Amino acid sequence: MKHDNVMNVAKKRGFLWSSFEIYSGVAGFVDYAPLGAILKNNIMNKWRKYYVVGEEFYEIESPTVMPEEALKASGHVDHFTDPLTECKDCMDVYRADHVIEEALDKDVEGLENDKLTEIISENKIRCPRCGGHLNKVWSYHLMFQTLIGAKGKKIGYMRPETAQGIFIPFKRLLRFFRNKLPFGVVQLGKAYRNEISPRQGVIRLREFTQAEAEIFVNPEDKTHPHFSQIAAEKLTLLPASCQMESKDPLEISAQEALDKKIVSSEMLIYQLYLAQKFLRELGIPDEALRFRQHLPTEMAHYAIDCWDVEVQTGRYGWVEIIGIADRADYDLKSHSEYSKEDLRVFIEYDEPKTVNKKIAKPNMSKFGPTFKGAAPQLMEALKETDASTIQDSFQEKGYYPIELDSVYEILPEHVEFAEVEEVVRGEKIFPHVIEPSYGIDRIVYSVLLHSFHEEKDKTYFKLANDIAPVQVSVFPLINKEKLASVAIGIKENLRKNGFIADYDSSGTIGRRYARSDEIGVPYAITVDHESLEDQQVTIRNRDNSEQVRIPISKVENIISKLISSKISFEDL
Amino acid sequence: MKHDNVMNVAKKRGFLWSSFEIYSGVAGFVDYAPLGAILKNNIMNKWRKYYVVGEEFYEIESPTVMPEEALKASGHVDHFTDPLTECKDCMDVYRADHVIEEALDKDVEGLENDKLTEIISENKIRCPRCGGHLNKVWSYHLMFQTLIGAKGKKIGYMRPETAQGIFIPFKRLLRFFRNKLPFGVVQLGKAYRNEISPRQGVIRLREFTQAEAEIFVNPEDKTHPHFSQIAAEKLTLLPASCQMESKDPLEISAQEALDKKIVSSEMLIYQLYLAQKFLRELGIPDEALRFRQHLPTEMAHYAIDCWDVEVQTGRYGWVEIIGIADRADYDLKSHSEYSKEDLRVFIEYDEPKTVNKKIAKPNMSKFGPTFKGAAPQLMEALKETDASTIQDSFQEKGYYPIELDSVYEILPEHVEFAEVEEVVRGEKIFPHVIEPSYGIDRIVYSVLLHSFHEEKDKTYFKLANDIAPVQVSVFPLINKEKLASVAIGIKENLRKNGFIADYDSSGTIGRRYARSDEIGVPYAITVDHESLEDQQVTIRNRDNSEQVRIPISKVENIISKLISSKISFEDL
Repeated sequence: MKHDNVMNVAKKRGFLWSSFEIYSGVAGFVDYAPLGAILKNNIMNKWRKYYVVGEEFYEIESPTVMPEEALKASGHVDHFTDPLTECKDCMDVYRADHVIEEALDKDVEGLENDKLTEIISENKIRCPRCGGHLNKVWSYHLMFQTLIGAKGKKIGYMRPETAQGIFIPFKRLLRFFRNKLPFGVVQLGKAYRNEISPRQGVIRLREFTQAEAEIFVNPEDKTHPHFSQIAAEKLTLLPASCQMESKDPLEISAQEALDKKIVSSEMLIYQLYLAQKFLRELGIPDEALRFRQHLPTEMAHYAIDCWDVEVQTGRYGWVEIIGIADRADYDLKSHSEYSKEDLRVFIEYDEPKTVNKKIAKPNMSKFGPTFKGAAPQLMEALKETDASTIQDSFQEKGYYPIELDSVYEILPEHVEFAEVEEVVRGEKIFPHVIEPSYGIDRIVYSVLLHSFHEEKDKTYFKLANDIAPVQVSVFPLINKEKLASVAIGIKENLRKNGFIADYDSSGTIGRRYARSDEIGVPYAITVDHESLEDQQVTIRNRDNSEQVRIPISKVENIISKLISSKISFEDL
Repeated sequence: MKHDNVMNVAKKRGFLWSSFEIYSGVAGFVDYAPLGAILKNNIMNKWRKYYVVGEEFYEIESPTVMPEEALKASGHVDHFTDPLTECKDCMDVYRADHVIEEALDKDVEGLENDKLTEIISENKIRCPRCGGHLNKVWSYHLMFQTLIGAKGKKIGYMRPETAQGIFIPFKRLLRFFRNKLPFGVVQLGKAYRNEISPRQGVIRLREFTQAEAEIFVNPEDKTHPHFSQIAAEKLTLLPASCQMESKDPLEISAQEALDKKIVSSEMLIYQLYLAQKFLRELGIPDEALRFRQHLPTEMAHYAIDCWDVEVQTGRYGWVEIIGIADRADYDLKSHSEYSKEDLRVFIEYDEPKTVNKKIAKPNMSKFGPTFKGAAPQLMEALKETDASTIQDSFQEKGYYPIELDSVYEILPEHVEFAEVEEVVRGEKIFPHVIEPSYGIDRIVYSVLLHSFHEEKDKTYFKLANDIAPVQVSVFPLINKEKLASVAIGIKENLRKNGFIADYDSSGTIGRRYARSDEIGVPYAITVDHESLEDQQVTIRNRDNSEQVRIPISKVENIISKLISSKISFEDL
C-alpha cells in the first residue's frame, strides 16, 4: 500500500519519527525528523508568502497556555468534549459515537450523552474488544489541563486552536489597523487535543500545528478586492445539497459559485481559491482535491457557511486538511460578553443620518444643588443612557441609580425628557470573521503521499523546488582528494549563499543519485575528472535523470534561478 | 528610563503586548504583536542561517508535551524546582532564597530546603509584605503538569527545554548522520517554566522560545574545522577567576583563550564567537555584551565548562540571553540508563588494536545436549559477555544465568576459559555534547532596547535591514487619486516580489515618515507630482533622512539589494 511505502521511506530517511520511542512511545505525538522539519518549515513559509506577504495579513504569536476564563468564553471549556464509554469488564475506553457507528453503521455525531447511552443499551452494543457491558456515556474533555503558578488555583489549558489568541487582543489589533475593516491576522503554531486513543498517525495528533487566518470584515461587505481577477477560476465543489442527493461534485467557476449562491460570499470563495492554488503548488493533484460543504447537521450553530478542503489519502479516505468558515460574529460577541470589553468596531455611514432621539436633560436648578461635585460626571452618564431605560427605572423603583464612586439616585424631579434631532455618523457593530484554518501536519502528510513516485528503478519524493528540504546534492564522481575538494568548495559556496546543499562521497555514483532522489533533492551536481580541466560540472535533474554540463562559476546562479523557478531545467 | 520608553513604543506600535489583557492578564505570558512577530521570526530565520545553513546542523521538531519517564531521566522531575516558603498570615508565597537574599544580602543559591528554613528562622526573617511568620521551605515544581489520554494515568509535562527532544531520538539521528561524529542538531520552539510570580516582563516568561543546538562530538576531539579562520577574533571574556578576584573582563583572541585554557575547547570557543557575531549583526553594541563563565558553584555537576552570554539591559542589569555549555556525556548516559537503550557511538580507531582477551568457550560435548535448541542463542550471549563476569557468577552462585525466553543456568562444566588475541576496530563511547542555548524572547527584547534611538525630533528602532518587520513604506506625497494609484502599484509590485511593503496615505508626509521611522522601516518610497512626469520616485533612508531619486522601474531591484546589504544607501 502506498501509505505504508511512503511512511517507511519517511521514517528510514528522516522525515517523520514516532516520538519518545526509547520510552515505548506515546500515541498521538510525532517528531519532525531532520528532513521533515525543513519540509514543514518550508511549507509554513510558503503559507506566509500567500497570506502575510500576498494578502497583507499580519502575523501574531500568542501563548499556547491559556487561562480558563478565555476558553470559557470561546465555548471550549463547556463544549470541546468527546462522548466516552468504558467497558465494565476490561475497563477499556471508547468514543461512544464511534462504537455505535461501527455496530449499527449509523451516523450519531452530535447526539446528547443520554441519547447515546440509550442507543447502546437498546441495541445491546458491547465492548468491541472483550464483549463486556459498556457503561453510561460521559463527556471527556479534550483539552490538556494544567495549573498556572504556585498557589495552584489558576486553571489553564493548552490551547485547542490558535484562533482564540487572535480574538482576545482584538481591540489592540483593531487599533494597529487604525480602526478600519477589513483586516486579516494570522497565527501559525501549536494547538492541542487530548485524544483518548489516537491511532491514525500524523492524521490525528494530540499536539499539532495550525496556520489560521482570521479575516475581520464588515458584515455588510464580504467582497474581496481581487475577486474579479479570479472570477473565472474553476473549483471542484461538493455542496451540501449534492451530498444529500449523492450527486457528483460540481466543476464550477468562482463567479458561478457566487451567482448561484453555492458559496455565501466573495471573501469565502476567494479563500477556497487560495487554498486550491496553495495545494496545487505543493503538488497535490486536482483529482485528489475537493471542497466539501458542511451539512446543516455538522455546521456549528453560529456559522454562516463552512467548507472543508479534503485530500484523498487512500489509507484514510478523504481527509479534511483545511477548514474554511464564515464564523459570523460568534467569537467577538462571546469574548465581549465574558470580558465586559466592547469589541465592536465603529463603522462610519456613507452619509451621516439624522435621527430623532428622546433624551433625559438635567434640570439644573435641582440637579446642581443635589449632586454638587458629582454633577458633571452624572450628566455625562445621563447623556450616554437611553431615555427609556431611565423612564423604566422611574416607573419601577421611583429613581434611576448611577454608580460612580458610590451610587447616586436620580429622581424624576432632577431631569426633563425631550425629543431632539441627532446627527449619527455611524454605528458600532461586531465584525464577521472569515477563517481559513490549515492543518499543517496533515498537509505535510498529503504532500509526502502525493509526491511519492515509484518507478522501476527508483522511488522518490517529487517535491516542488521551493519546499524540498535539501535543494542540491554535490558529489565527486569518485572519492579522490582532488575531485572531493572541488566538490566541497561548490557545496560550501552554495551554503554561503543560503542553500541547503549536501555533500556525499560514499558509495557508487548511482547509489548516491538514488539516495538523493529518494529524499526529493531536485538537483545534483557532480564533479568529474574533466571538471579539473574545463572547470565545468554536471547538473542532473531528479525527475528525469537528465544531465547538462555547466561552468562551476555559474553553479550558484543557476541553482538560484532553478530553485526560485525563474528558469526551468530545459532552459539550461 | 530607556526601558520604559522602549516598552511604551513597543506596546503602542504593535511589537509586544501583555497576554489575555481583557481577562485581567496572566503574568509571565506575552503576545508577539504584528510587528513583534515578524521581528521574532526574522531573528529565528537569521539563527537558522547561522546554524542550519552555515554550520550544516539539521533542525528537528519534537513535541512540547513530554511523558514523565523522559523527564525523569533528564533529571527535571526531581531537580527542576524552586525553594518556596509561604507566609502563615497572608498566605503569600515567596522564593525562599530570594527572601533571604533580600533580607541578608547573602547568596544562598543551591542550598538545601532544610538549610534555608534554618536561616529564615535563625535570622527571624519575616514576610516582606505583612511581616508574618514564614513556614517551612518546600520544593515547588517548575514544570507545567498535565495528563495524557482518557484514562488519566499518564503524567505529562510541558517541556522545560527543547534540548531533551534531541537527546531522545539520538539513535535515529545518529543513523541519519550515518553513524559519524561530530554532528549537530538544533531545535527552535516553545519551552515552559511555571514561575511562581514572574514580574520581569519578557525577561522571565512562563512560556518562552528557545533556539538550541546540540553538537555531538567525540570526547577526544573537540576541534572545529574552521577554528583557524576565527583564531584571531577578539572576545570579551569574564572567566570565573576574574569574577572571584573582582577583575575586569579580558579582551582576548580565540587562540589565546584556547592556549591559556580559559575556555575548554575549540568547539566551545567557536560557539562563543558565533554568538558574538550573531548578536553584533542584530545590532547589540560590543560594550553591552560580555561572556561570563559560570563559577564553580553555579555550574551543573556534570558540565565541563559553561559560559553565559550577557547583555547589559539597564533596567535588569546584565542578563543572560545565551548559555553555551560543554555538558559532557550527562544527557545521553542518563537516557541510556533509564531507557535501557544503548545510546553510545562506535568510534573506529585509526589503527585496529590487537588485545588479549579472556573468553568463555562453550564445551560443546556438554553444551549441546544440555541446551539443545537454545544452544545457538546462548553461545551468542556468551560471546558478548566478559569472561570475568561469568567467573564471578560461578564463584558467587555456582552458575551464570542467561535470560532468553526463560532463564538458562550455565554451569562451570558447560564452558572452558581461554586467552585469545582479538583485533579490535574501535570502541563504543558516549559522545560529549556542546550546547549553545539561545533565549529568543530575551534576544528580541535586547534588540529592541539597543536599537532604540531618541533624537531631538524623532524616536526610532534602528533595526538591521534583515530583521526589520516592515522593509519599505510607500507613500503618495499627498492623498490624490493619481499619486495614490502609482504608490499602490509600487507597493503591490514589492509585495509580489516577497517584500513586506506598507502603504500609508493618511496625515502629512512628515507625520508618515515619523511613523515609519518609529517602527524601524529602513526605507520609504514617496510618489510626488513629478513622478507622474519623470517616472521617478524618492527613496529615503531611515537613519539619516537622506533622500535620493530613483526610477520606478528600478525600485524592486534597489530595495532587494539594499535589504540584502549587497549595496548601501550611499551607493545610490
